[in-house]
Amino acid sequence: MKKLINAPDRVVDEALEGMALAHPDLIRVEPPNIVVRRDAPREGKVGIVSGGGSGHEPMHGGFVGFGMLDAACPGAVFTSPVPDQMLAATKAVNGGRGVLHIVKNYTGDVMNFEIAAELAGDEGIEVSTVLVADDVAVQDSLYTAGRRGVGGTVLTEKIVGAAAEDGADLESVTNLGRRIQDGVRSMGMALTSCTVPAAGKPTFDIGDDEMEIGIGIHGEPGRRREKLRPADEIVDMLVGPILDEGIYERGDNVLAFVNGMGGTPLVEQYIVYRRVSHILSDRGITITRNLIGSYITSLEMAGTSITLLKLDDELTRLWDAPVHTPAMRWRM
Amino acid sequence: MKKLINAPDRVVDEALEGMALAHPDLIRVEPPNIVVRRDAPREGKVGIVSGGGSGHEPMHGGFVGFGMLDAACPGAVFTSPVPDQMLAATKAVNGGRGVLHIVKNYTGDVMNFEIAAELAGDEGIEVSTVLVADDVAVQDSLYTAGRRGVGGTVLTEKIVGAAAEDGADLESVTNLGRRIQDGVRSMGMALTSCTVPAAGKPTFDIGDDEMEIGIGIHGEPGRRREKLRPADEIVDMLVGPILDEGIYERGDNVLAFVNGMGGTPLVEQYIVYRRVSHILSDRGITITRNLIGSYITSLEMAGTSITLLKLDDELTRLWDAPVHTPAMRWRM
Repeated sequence: MKKLINAPDRVVDEALEGMALAHPDLIRVEPPNIVVRRDAPREGKVGIVSGGGSGHEPMHGGFVGFGMLDAACPGAVFTSPVPDQMLAATKAVNGGRGVLHIVKNYTGDVMNFEIAAELAGDEGIEVSTVLVADDVAVQDSLYTAGRRGVGGTVLTEKIVGAAAEDGADLESVTNLGRRIQDGVRSMGMALTSCTVPAAGKPTFDIGDDEMEIGIGIHGEPGRRREKLRPADEIVDMLVGPILDEGIYERGDNVLAFVNGMGGTPLVEQYIVYRRVSHILSDRGITITRNLIGSYITSLEMAGTSITLLKLDDELTRLWDAPVHTPAMRWRM
Repeated sequence: MKKLINAPDRVVDEALEGMALAHPDLIRVEPPNIVVRRDAPREGKVGIVSGGGSGHEPMHGGFVGFGMLDAACPGAVFTSPVPDQMLAATKAVNGGRGVLHIVKNYTGDVMNFEIAAELAGDEGIEVSTVLVADDVAVQDSLYTAGRRGVGGTVLTEKIVGAAAEDGADLESVTNLGRRIQDGVRSMGMALTSCTVPAAGKPTFDIGDDEMEIGIGIHGEPGRRREKLRPADEIVDMLVGPILDEGIYERGDNVLAFVNGMGGTPLVEQYIVYRRVSHILSDRGITITRNLIGSYITSLEMAGTSITLLKLDDELTRLWDAPVHTPAMRWRM
């Protein structure tokens, strides 16, 4: 295992310490390992909380700040955070107008956020939930009943975060978050595995000439293992099933998000984006916004995921709205 | 070789096409493979041009836009661009007040930028040059006489770009760029090699328990090969030689830049930043600005480099100034 770490059991704590040292103007890190917006709670603002296993950085801690998340709960690597973290985060960001939990659809995350929401309710905090399940690759998986939540999470957090920053109430941001799910779909693939520090060896074996199509963000299996192919053919295999959902039509405007899995250089991500752009152009679908980079990763895995989100004027405006977090920043 | 590419000889062209498709609001790509700010030339503004081999993305093409570069010349992977590219870029951004070339100290880059500057001069364009040679690891290398230009390049491009955007003249931006070099030093290391697409095999072999200290951005050898160690000890080995330069003193303010080499996850970069922060704090040196992420890479190499830049009020103000490029964006 070759990693820039001190010890497997200190990875998350030390990375969080590094984040707190790097971004004191944006965030604070508090027990029990939660990342909280520096100025939370903000009176009168709906709090936005997400979380999940570590190893997907910058998601979620890198998205805490103005115009996106109010708090994030990082679990151990590829392990759900515990209800105590989610409850602490919920209380830390409660400004009196309720708190929204954005939850990726993994069994542990869903269960623990449900417990936390109940506990917060017992303390008089109104909590609602948006479940993200945008991965078209598989119906159920090692870690889920139903589809997995992947790249759509990043887009949901940005857009819902902007609405909350604008003063929208809990019902509005909840409905907005659910509406986003109607129009967002993703699929990913991997060229290599990744190594969870505590395990010390790659999560799965893969041949020098093989790739995994439909991989999950924890290295869990996808649709099929097959021989490596040129990038354009790989992109076709990812965008095809997304378009087969039947929700993107000629004349639609979309946000296209090409994501690196952690070990994929930007130069390859742009080659992927090129093909995505060609495919959608041929279908009469216009990419009016895009995001290219490594935003939801699987440690050092080489691979990519593609996410499409159908845009309307409201979603476009909220996407464009100012954001200032460690990993996403514009217009301020 | 596992890469998301279509063919080794099309990597740069297709990635540039992807960039042009993704960022038409910021850049355009023109023959002979140059990335130019969309609205160049800007009348009355000093043009800022850089360039070098591809494979270091987002540097340099990702830094073209408002407040940073006016044009970038990408060569083949790890290969200097040719004088024709540099001349075309210089002409494309010439707004009548001269053009500054920011050149990393590699023999091919230096020679070709010199030829281009002469040719531009023949056409009546005043050109000056800032040479970046911030890598303390080795005095000469496979590709250089003198020190190599590495992470300091990113910081130079941002700060000089801000000054040019403010309307500074050619002499001022040149002097500013040279003054930055007095206060910027870097050193890097690698856990793994990288594979140049045209070569098809790793640039060098490295054992499963080894690392290369003082690596260059083309995988060229550094100071020494040794056994892998904990992250904190590795950071000590990088920051030590930087501080031994004797230019950072108790009471100084610095910008600390922790860079990922392309295959290093963000979670590890924050563990590196944590140690950098501790070391400087112990020395009475204050990190007043930081940059953490993969900005000057070596394809998919796993590793990190650390850059320190001494800050004063002017440099801090120019660092903070608005920037809007594909890879660096804030305050707009």
